[in-house]
Amino acid sequence: MQHIAKIMMASNRIALLSHVSPDGDTLGSCFALQLALQALGKEVEVVTGEEIPPIFDFLNGRYLIETEKIYDTVVCLDCGDIGRLKDRKALFDRATTTINIDHHMTNSNFAQHNVVEEHASTSEMVLALIERLGAPLTKEIATWLYVAITTDTGGFKYSNTKAETHVTIAKLMAYDLDIAEINRRIFEMMTLTKLKLTAHTMSNIHFYENGKIAVATLDYETLHQAQAESGDIDGLTRIPISVEGVEVGMLATEVVKGEIKISFRSNRYVNVAEIATKYGGGGHAKAAGCSVNGEMEHILADILLTVTNALNKE
Amino acid sequence: MQHIAKIMMASNRIALLSHVSPDGDTLGSCFALQLALQALGKEVEVVTGEEIPPIFDFLNGRYLIETEKIYDTVVCLDCGDIGRLKDRKALFDRATTTINIDHHMTNSNFAQHNVVEEHASTSEMVLALIERLGAPLTKEIATWLYVAITTDTGGFKYSNTKAETHVTIAKLMAYDLDIAEINRRIFEMMTLTKLKLTAHTMSNIHFYENGKIAVATLDYETLHQAQAESGDIDGLTRIPISVEGVEVGMLATEVVKGEIKISFRSNRYVNVAEIATKYGGGGHAKAAGCSVNGEMEHILADILLTVTNALNKE
Repeated sequence: MQHIAKIMMASNRIALLSHVSPDGDTLGSCFALQLALQALGKEVEVVTGEEIPPIFDFLNGRYLIETEKIYDTVVCLDCGDIGRLKDRKALFDRATTTINIDHHMTNSNFAQHNVVEEHASTSEMVLALIERLGAPLTKEIATWLYVAITTDTGGFKYSNTKAETHVTIAKLMAYDLDIAEINRRIFEMMTLTKLKLTAHTMSNIHFYENGKIAVATLDYETLHQAQAESGDIDGLTRIPISVEGVEVGMLATEVVKGEIKISFRSNRYVNVAEIATKYGGGGHAKAAGCSVNGEMEHILADILLTVTNALNKE
Repeated sequence: MQHIAKIMMASNRIALLSHVSPDGDTLGSCFALQLALQALGKEVEVVTGEEIPPIFDFLNGRYLIETEKIYDTVVCLDCGDIGRLKDRKALFDRATTTINIDHHMTNSNFAQHNVVEEHASTSEMVLALIERLGAPLTKEIATWLYVAITTDTGGFKYSNTKAETHVTIAKLMAYDLDIAEINRRIFEMMTLTKLKLTAHTMSNIHFYENGKIAVATLDYETLHQAQAESGDIDGLTRIPISVEGVEVGMLATEVVKGEIKISFRSNRYVNVAEIATKYGGGGHAKAAGCSVNGEMEHILADILLTVTNALNKE
């Protein structure tokens, strides 16, 4: 990280780029680094390519959606490959120096300078960089880093959480963070639309194979009537699998008429990546997804057969 | 903690007592200490006075509900006062030596030896004691301590979470804990009954005062039909307050016909302890409760008036 810090100290106009469909880690990394570099007298802009999710509004991050400006240095944060920049590739290409800081070990090393390390979040690398830069840590910076880490680890619950993650959080908490309020905003608060969709999902779960398979559906009419946005659907995929005794949980959503997206989750022994792959999708053994065009009922009947076979094979 | 460790080393038959309606902290403290003392060759029993919540079954804690035995030393863990032992007071009174280890600063110091310190959980004091005893930390002990801490801090989200809490968790994670599975069991998995009651609560919220007040109800018929147990209702109190824009959230439940329990939560400025106190209850400024006998509809209409006044007074 030493040579990255040197490049930044030699730069005057810096752009920080988040990935498409920005999450807490990419945004927390951008805004924390922006504040640190600004404290060192640098001109720094975060360029996102899109509006950021309203869930982060309470933190007042300052950003541009797009810009025609030219920067000395462009830094991509939490971007696994150049495609994650979308239209901002032009901005990236215009820069004299390009840097890529990421924690995805599959990173394509697309910049001039690439730092890819395995951590729970990219923001932990940003903290190391800020320390290298000698910029002062502030409550605001620590808050963004906390948000980045807690969102990327599902509130320290996912298996990517490491002992070092908690050590970093302990360090950040020295800055008098209002963690109760941060966590309320990030994990508890929901829109009325999300409340209704959650209730609808919970009320419309069908169980098969003695309760080992749970299928929830949100069809076009329901989602259209609720004027659902993607932020309202995020997280609902975890509902069917959370019921006691379920081994495979599925959520089928139809945001676009006739386009059925199915999210699969499994608990212990069914490999849902194999199932999703059969329908043109993919993913991990315990979390996968696919998208199939057609009528929800027919598609689900077919997939249910495949899931039942996979379940009974074990 | 040094003198407590000495007493334990001199004891042969030790009973560890959890508090009534046992939670993760009291149980995690008991089972972790039991395992550590057993490794030192002591005869140790956890005596709970009741079945422990099924959510902890996957950890296979060994305990007695009651016993007529006499112990050299009895240790109360996470018990604020002697009343928290209920019928096990007799067992406590029979012991030669009594110890009280707790993190509630209001503790009544009811034992011969009392150690009361301010921590997020009692289990952090148990960890210090285990270290003093020189007992080896194992994955099983570390898992119980992790469960104790994460349940008492709401998954590290509540304001009682301290930097030292995360430092302790980092230490425990060195024992190869399966945190994804632990957290799934503790925070995600729900019974079918809990799923239905959650959906019902979410579908039955009424909003008042421009969405600033949210009231959910679970009446006797609903709870009776669902055969709800207290574990199914826990946590539902957080639903009304979690909707965007709500300042006061209330959940009214009627487990016993004609006995209406109301839980209040507030976000920022309304003191719900004052409201609950007016109806014979109490609590904290942002989380309080009361119990009123009568008809749900009438009681809620009256309380709603009080809440509206409190809201508009600010």
